Amino acid sequence: MLQLGASSLSASDITALLLGIAVLLGLARILGERARRYRQPSVLGEILAGIILGPTIFGAISIFLINNGFLSHNLFDLLFPLEGGEKIALDGFITISATLLLFVVGLEVDLSTVIRQGKEAITVSMAGIVLPFAFGFTIAWYFPDFLGAGPRGMGEDGQLPFAIFLGIAMSITALPVIAKILLDLNIAKSDMGMLIISSAMLNDLVGWIGFAIVLALLPAAAMLSDTTVVQSTEAVKEIAHQVVNQSGDMAADMGGSNVVTTILITLVFLALMLTLGRLACHKMLPYVQARWSWPGGVLSFVICISLICAAFTEYLGIHSIFGAFVAGVAIGDSTHLRERTRDTINQFIMNIFSPIFFASIGLRINFIDSFDIVIVLLVLVLATVGKVSGSYFGARTAKLGKREASALSFGMAAQGAVGIILGQLAREAGLINDELMVAIVVMALTTSLISGPIMQAVLRLQHQRKLIDFLTDKQVITDPHATDVMQTIGELSKRAAEITGLKAHEIYKSVLQRERIMHTGLPGGLAVPHARLDGLAKPCVIITRHRIGVDFDSPDGKPAQIIGLLLTPTDQPETQIELLSLFAKSFARTAIRQRILEVNSPTEFMAVLNQAASEDSEAASPH
Amino acid sequence: MLQLGASSLSASDITALLLGIAVLLGLARILGERARRYRQPSVLGEILAGIILGPTIFGAISIFLINNGFLSHNLFDLLFPLEGGEKIALDGFITISATLLLFVVGLEVDLSTVIRQGKEAITVSMAGIVLPFAFGFTIAWYFPDFLGAGPRGMGEDGQLPFAIFLGIAMSITALPVIAKILLDLNIAKSDMGMLIISSAMLNDLVGWIGFAIVLALLPAAAMLSDTTVVQSTEAVKEIAHQVVNQSGDMAADMGGSNVVTTILITLVFLALMLTLGRLACHKMLPYVQARWSWPGGVLSFVICISLICAAFTEYLGIHSIFGAFVAGVAIGDSTHLRERTRDTINQFIMNIFSPIFFASIGLRINFIDSFDIVIVLLVLVLATVGKVSGSYFGARTAKLGKREASALSFGMAAQGAVGIILGQLAREAGLINDELMVAIVVMALTTSLISGPIMQAVLRLQHQRKLIDFLTDKQVITDPHATDVMQTIGELSKRAAEITGLKAHEIYKSVLQRERIMHTGLPGGLAVPHARLDGLAKPCVIITRHRIGVDFDSPDGKPAQIIGLLLTPTDQPETQIELLSLFAKSFARTAIRQRILEVNSPTEFMAVLNQAASEDSEAASPH
Repeated sequence: MLQLGASSLSASDITALLLGIAVLLGLARILGERARRYRQPSVLGEILAGIILGPTIFGAISIFLINNGFLSHNLFDLLFPLEGGEKIALDGFITISATLLLFVVGLEVDLSTVIRQGKEAITVSMAGIVLPFAFGFTIAWYFPDFLGAGPRGMGEDGQLPFAIFLGIAMSITALPVIAKILLDLNIAKSDMGMLIISSAMLNDLVGWIGFAIVLALLPAAAMLSDTTVVQSTEAVKEIAHQVVNQSGDMAADMGGSNVVTTILITLVFLALMLTLGRLACHKMLPYVQARWSWPGGVLSFVICISLICAAFTEYLGIHSIFGAFVAGVAIGDSTHLRERTRDTINQFIMNIFSPIFFASIGLRINFIDSFDIVIVLLVLVLATVGKVSGSYFGARTAKLGKREASALSFGMAAQGAVGIILGQLAREAGLINDELMVAIVVMALTTSLISGPIMQAVLRLQHQRKLIDFLTDKQVITDPHATDVMQTIGELSKRAAEITGLKAHEIYKSVLQRERIMHTGLPGGLAVPHARLDGLAKPCVIITRHRIGVDFDSPDGKPAQIIGLLLTPTDQPETQIELLSLFAKSFARTAIRQRILEVNSPTEFMAVLNQAASEDSEAASPH
Repeated sequence: MLQLGASSLSASDITALLLGIAVLLGLARILGERARRYRQPSVLGEILAGIILGPTIFGAISIFLINNGFLSHNLFDLLFPLEGGEKIALDGFITISATLLLFVVGLEVDLSTVIRQGKEAITVSMAGIVLPFAFGFTIAWYFPDFLGAGPRGMGEDGQLPFAIFLGIAMSITALPVIAKILLDLNIAKSDMGMLIISSAMLNDLVGWIGFAIVLALLPAAAMLSDTTVVQSTEAVKEIAHQVVNQSGDMAADMGGSNVVTTILITLVFLALMLTLGRLACHKMLPYVQARWSWPGGVLSFVICISLICAAFTEYLGIHSIFGAFVAGVAIGDSTHLRERTRDTINQFIMNIFSPIFFASIGLRINFIDSFDIVIVLLVLVLATVGKVSGSYFGARTAKLGKREASALSFGMAAQGAVGIILGQLAREAGLINDELMVAIVVMALTTSLISGPIMQAVLRLQHQRKLIDFLTDKQVITDPHATDVMQTIGELSKRAAEITGLKAHEIYKSVLQRERIMHTGLPGGLAVPHARLDGLAKPCVIITRHRIGVDFDSPDGKPAQIIGLLLTPTDQPETQIELLSLFAKSFARTAIRQRILEVNSPTEFMAVLNQAASEDSEAASPH
């Protein structure tokens, strides 16, 4: 089944391609979920997956195993080779992933909101751009070699684009990350939340336009842009020459690139897409939805538009993802794009393409070899100080109070995914070297990690906790032996004792004491026996699902089928109220209670709860 | 921005890649929708898109334009070149598309249903396989050269796999096509419908296992499998040699392939996946749904599993899509895979990846040059006769009546997409040549086209028509001038006159006459003035949406806001009843009526109606 040749994929190429994508996706998801569990953005885990699978760890281990005779092949080279058909196919897939990812980011930019917030958003966003941009531009202009300019970022021609790039890299704000943080803190719909979001959108737009200009300014590539070592042979060079000749004419069409022309065309493209293009999409969507199959037709339509715009900007000489982003902004603004279409696009791209893209970043960089502590700290400090003080100044100018201005400025400092995407593109284009790329990744991740907790502290807010955050499988009983109230409390207390280390009969006594004052049955088949306990380190919830039901004397007379034992430390009186309300809210919907009655194991119980929680928070989100 | 080299994609590669995919997707969707409009499977239009974009038409036009000096570049070569980075990246993307497509096909196989239908399904399906298989096997065995065996389908080693392949190609049934036909005819949930579906599923399973065996039996490739002319240069050959050396060890691991071992491992893999694998997925899904973000986590999980299985079967030496198909069957059977997850996967893959795959088939074959009428007719007749008579015999054995057995046997003859996928794989593997591939495509499309109408005729059924089938934008009025009943009927009659060519005052008179007997207001703000007219060629519906409402004296006293004028020919009394019930059903849901009140143009009106119709038919579908 082996098919060979420079122009087709062999069976081993295809095997490695599929396995490579599966491994990237799988590990990225696993570590992304880990990160999420610690309330961190999942992109952190996804990038870590790439670092593990790349030369930093997996590659190094492979080489170690070969050198010591444990292996005869380099596993890393088999899965993620540096040349050959599989590498090209994987690169192509990753390019498409990045393009579609930016399309989704563009979809989230709501032009109407930005326009509505108007003046204030412009003030905050411009102040937040100018200062860090000045910082970045200045040091890059004077110390390009020290900071890590790539082969095309040096010399007379490269100095300006390199300096502009670093300015932009330091002044970007991550829309998806900050939106997530605001949702978590439940302030996305407050005035401050809306202001942060519109400023971030504006910031995104300005940043991408600036980056398009950087790409247009770049001196023509005189060498292979891929900074990894290419084991070039004579034959490879010969092929390269042929490719040059083949695509030479095309390059001539677009190449000779008068920089000014490229920038002008880009700006015209942008202006047209955001006016006529936006209107055309708005007019065409109902047409497509009326005549084509639904929702499939509109799905193909929007992806097709985004790919065409992406191809156009790539042809112009700026990157494909700029076109995809602009297409996303133009289409996303239409009120005719229905929720279900957005949801399908979002789910598939954010959960398949996006993790693969972020994991791929680590594949070609050795994060240990290229870690330069001076550059990392320099970039981190300058970006944070510039962004925070600039945004604070802007927010105060826009008449925000001190506390809110502080919170906002740290919110705007979150760089997240967007900074990393820009860095990766710049690195691929040969504008920056691996050391600077590592510094940008570290800076983007660090700012994303700290901005949430700082905002929370400044605003004295609490993360909205969910019931599921207090639960593990061991704290759910789906096949109870108990048949009455006393036995049920006994069974719950016993399980609680195993988990907390307290004595079962003491828990039992306290709970029963409370229960005797008044039964804790709630309407809808719920009950919440509870107690405050001394010596309890942290709150403990045990839930039992009772198919037949136990009579907890509820107001509506129904037997309790979902019974939650809520134990809280004596010194945290507010936690008891929180747990009571979380419990009642989690099982408020009849459909959820119905599904809870059908589960067969604690894990299935947790699955229903997890889905319900995500549906609830979706219903509360702006989109 | 040009990046060169044999191991990375240049900007022009990326431009062509994105544009190529966009063009394939766009044209496939447009022609697919055309086909759907004529009640044909959309795969017909998708394949046609590929034929138009391939060497048959676009390629031929490009060459013509160059030869006559109208163009300096070959546009076809720029977009879909035969070698170089873009070709490899596009091939990789198409391979991934095919893999994911087969995963979705596998998801639709419902093992439990097959097992429940048990004996009867086995009888029908086996009888339907044996006869056409025997036909195909026999002629392929005796006349391989004449029929069009490829380079690897000839000679002593190739004869057996080639004969088995043609047997399978003739005995396959297209699950997606037949399921769609049954839904259209509204008999998917009847006993016969369920029997057809389970037989088709069983047939699919047997067909794919058989094909895996064919691939295992294939003699090792001694040449480039791609049958297109490769403009090979010395340099390309040298590269090829290097690739051989590089992947040689891997090939040795899997290559030396003792055929029996490969088949055994494949069968063990299949058995394990359908038992332990199926159980493991069923157990792991709640775990993933309980702990990972929802619905994103489970989405990544299932795609990851399917890619791993695909990589494994590719490694075994059979094709990647077999593994994806088996993974789909194993996962799809779990009741824990929620509707929303299925829906997201389905929508995205069927509307993005699947059209791209089907369109890609035409990209490498010249359908005019390779059209051999004798082979086409031979394959078509043998496949149809074999499948229809075999299935009929099976159905009679399973005690079905003559009429039902006839209907079932034509249903089973629909080859659709699956036959084409197998053909494409066989062609890529060098087992068959372009002429036979064209014949298989023609046969698969023809059988898909005829089976629906024949079943309909045999069972004397009607397609379920929808209200939207009777409407165009011109037949919808969203900004009426009328303010009372008389004016409204006048306005509707005038529009009807423009469309039918009848006189407006005659229509007006007839409708008013009917309206005077009794007003036609319905509860919920609907009204249906109607009349039967002589000289009307076909039914005519005009709908007006009146924001304020007109008093049509409805039972609930509400003014009519959606008013449909229903005109039917005098000699079709049953059509009037049909239209009345379609109208009432279409606007039965309050949510739909609400959205109708908000639309601003006839096109938006049609969009709402189209979405509502698709939601209604989804609610009625088995999944």
